[in-house]
Amino acid sequence: MTGFTAGDYAARMERAARAAADAGLSGVLVAPGPDLAWLTGYQPTAITERLTLLVLAPGRDPALVVPTLEKPDAQAAPGASALALTDWTDGTDPYGVAARLLLAEGHYGISDSAWAMHLLGLQRTLPASRYTALTDSLPMLRAVKDAHELERLAAAGAAADATYEEILGVSFAGRRETDVAADLAGLLRKHGHEQVDFTVVGSGPNGANPHHEAGDRLIQQGDTVVLDFGGLMGGYGSDTTRTVHVGGSPTDEVKAVHDVVRRAQQSAFEAVRPGVTCQDIDRVARRVITEAGYGEYFIHRTGHGIGVTTHEPPYIVEGEERPLVPGMCFSIEPGVYLPGRFGVRIEDIVTVTEDGGRRLNGTDHALGTVA
Amino acid sequence: MTGFTAGDYAARMERAARAAADAGLSGVLVAPGPDLAWLTGYQPTAITERLTLLVLAPGRDPALVVPTLEKPDAQAAPGASALALTDWTDGTDPYGVAARLLLAEGHYGISDSAWAMHLLGLQRTLPASRYTALTDSLPMLRAVKDAHELERLAAAGAAADATYEEILGVSFAGRRETDVAADLAGLLRKHGHEQVDFTVVGSGPNGANPHHEAGDRLIQQGDTVVLDFGGLMGGYGSDTTRTVHVGGSPTDEVKAVHDVVRRAQQSAFEAVRPGVTCQDIDRVARRVITEAGYGEYFIHRTGHGIGVTTHEPPYIVEGEERPLVPGMCFSIEPGVYLPGRFGVRIEDIVTVTEDGGRRLNGTDHALGTVA
Repeated sequence: MTGFTAGDYAARMERAARAAADAGLSGVLVAPGPDLAWLTGYQPTAITERLTLLVLAPGRDPALVVPTLEKPDAQAAPGASALALTDWTDGTDPYGVAARLLLAEGHYGISDSAWAMHLLGLQRTLPASRYTALTDSLPMLRAVKDAHELERLAAAGAAADATYEEILGVSFAGRRETDVAADLAGLLRKHGHEQVDFTVVGSGPNGANPHHEAGDRLIQQGDTVVLDFGGLMGGYGSDTTRTVHVGGSPTDEVKAVHDVVRRAQQSAFEAVRPGVTCQDIDRVARRVITEAGYGEYFIHRTGHGIGVTTHEPPYIVEGEERPLVPGMCFSIEPGVYLPGRFGVRIEDIVTVTEDGGRRLNGTDHALGTVA
Repeated sequence: MTGFTAGDYAARMERAARAAADAGLSGVLVAPGPDLAWLTGYQPTAITERLTLLVLAPGRDPALVVPTLEKPDAQAAPGASALALTDWTDGTDPYGVAARLLLAEGHYGISDSAWAMHLLGLQRTLPASRYTALTDSLPMLRAVKDAHELERLAAAGAAADATYEEILGVSFAGRRETDVAADLAGLLRKHGHEQVDFTVVGSGPNGANPHHEAGDRLIQQGDTVVLDFGGLMGGYGSDTTRTVHVGGSPTDEVKAVHDVVRRAQQSAFEAVRPGVTCQDIDRVARRVITEAGYGEYFIHRTGHGIGVTTHEPPYIVEGEERPLVPGMCFSIEPGVYLPGRFGVRIEDIVTVTEDGGRRLNGTDHALGTVA
C-alpha cells in the first residue's frame, strides 16, 4: 500500500484553496475531522472545545491555529511541513487569533462538522464575515479519488468481502444479533481493518429498521437477516450489505422482495457512467422497486460517497443534480423494509470509471444461506 | 447503581427549558452528543450529516426532529415518552421541518458540538433568528450533579484508582509506552469501564508534552512517566493522573518538581468551597508553581468539569468568574513540563460539598515507583 507524502498533502491543500477561489470563496476553514486528516494528515487525539482550525486561502500559505498544548502533535503531522502554525493558550481568545488570518468581510467554506460553538465565535469576532458549509460550497472536494486512494478503497472492500465469506460459515440460529455483530467486527479486524464503524445484524423484524445495529434478539430458524458492516482500513472506508436467510427455505415473499432489491441494485450499477447525475442513479433503483409495488418501503436514499469517511458526498439522492465524474466512489444500497416483518438490502461500493462503473465489492448478491 | 428513569429525563428537559427562559432565551436546541444523551437518554448510532435536533422551549412539549430511518431508535430511547417526534425523509429539507418548531426571531442556545452545517441551515432558513453556544448561554446546565450522578462519578473514580494501584505492579522498563497504555485500557475495562477515552503514558521527554498519548518509545530505567487515563463507566467519566518513576532513585530535580506540583494540587483542593470562583482555584494552583519558579512551565488550565463527558464546564481557568456550587465536579490537575526532559502532573476529580471539596480519587499522591 502506498503511503501519502508531505507533497501529497501540500498538493491537496493547494487544490482546495484553488477550488475555493473558483467557487468565489475567500478560503476554506477546516476543523478536526476527516477533511483535516485528508488535507494535512493531522488527527488530534480528541476533538474538544479547544479551537483547532486550518485556514486555506488562495495565494497564501496554509495556516493552522492550534491550542498551545497540542502544538507538538500538530508539528508531528505528515503534512505539517507545509503549514504555518499559530498557537493560542488557555484563557486567551482563540477566535481573535483565527480572525487575524481571515478577511473581515470574507466568505468562507467551513467544515460541515466544525462545532457550532466555533462558528459562532468567528461570526461574533467578524460580524461581516459569511460562511457556507463545505459540503454545500465545495461538495466534491474529496469526492474524486486518486489512484492511491482507489487502491486503499479497493483493499478495504476486499477485506469486507472476505468478512462476508467467512460469516456465512458461523452459526446464526440461537445466537444473539450482538454475537454475530461481534463476529463481524472480529473478522473485519482480522482482515486488516484498524477501525470498525458499524456491524448491523438486523434479524427478522429488526431488519425492517434500516438503522438497527444489533440487539439482544435471538436469531431464529427462518429469519431473514440484513448484514451491513464496514469501517476503516489504511484510513479508507468499507461498507457492504448482504441479506441472508437462516435455514433452508425462504418464503416466496422473501424471495420475491430479495429479487426486486437485487434487480434494483444491478440496474443502478449499470446506469453508472460519467455525466449521469447522482439523482439519476437513485431514480433507477427506485423505479425498479416502485414498479414492483414496494416503493413506499424503500425509505432512504440509494447511496452515499465513501473515502476517509464512510458517509460523504456524492450523495445518491433525489435533488442531487451533480454529474458523476471518474474516480468518485459511493455505495449503491437499495432496500425494502416491511415493518414488523423483515428487511432486505444489498450494497456495494462502486467507483466511476471512464466509461461506466466498477464494483469494489464482489461477493455473490444471491440470498445467502446460513445455519 | 441506580438507573435513570423517563421521569428523570423529563425533569432534566423541563429544567433546561426553564433555565433557557431565565437566561432570556427562546429555547435550547440540542444536537446528538452528551447534552442529548443527558436530556433524553438518546444516543444515535452515529452522528452524521442527517439532522437530529431536540427543541426545548418554555411552556411547550419537548420536540425531537429525527431522520425517518432513525425514528425507531429514537422512539426506543429511555426519555422518549416525553418527546414529540417529527421525522423528515432523505431528499426533503430538514431545516424547514426544524424551523416550524422555532420562533422566526427567536434567540436559541445550541449545543457546542452541533455541526456548523446544521447551524448554517437554521440561520439560512430563519435569517432573523439568533444563536449562542450552549456553554456560553447556559454553561452550568449539566454542571451540578444530583446524587445519582455523583454516585456514578464516584464509582468511575474508584475504578480508575483500582487501575492505578494495579499498574504500579506491571513492568515499565524495556516496554513501549503503547504497551503500558494497553495495560491501562485493559485494567479500566476490567474494573468496569465500558469506554476508554485516553491512556496517556508520557515517559521521559514525552511527559513534557501534556497531550502526548503513548508512542513507540521504549521506557527506560530512570524515566519519569506521566500516567493520565480515564473513560466512561455507567455513562459517567473518570480522569486521574499520577506521575511515577522507573527504578529506585529519582533526581533531586524530579523530586523537587514533583513536590511543587503536589503542593499546588493540594492547595487548590483545599481552596474548593461554594462561592469561590473557578479562576480562584486556577490561581491558587498557579501561584504555588509560579512561586517555586516553574510558572512558565505550567502551560494549561488547572482543570475541567466532568460528567457524561470527560471535558465540560466548569472550566478551572483564568477568566472563569462563576462561583462553585455544591454538586459541581471537576479535575484539579496542575503540571510542570520541562521541554525535552520530563513532565509531572497530578490530577484528582473533586466535587464541591456544602462546606468544601471531596476527592473522587484517593490514591497516594507521592511519586510512585515502578520497575
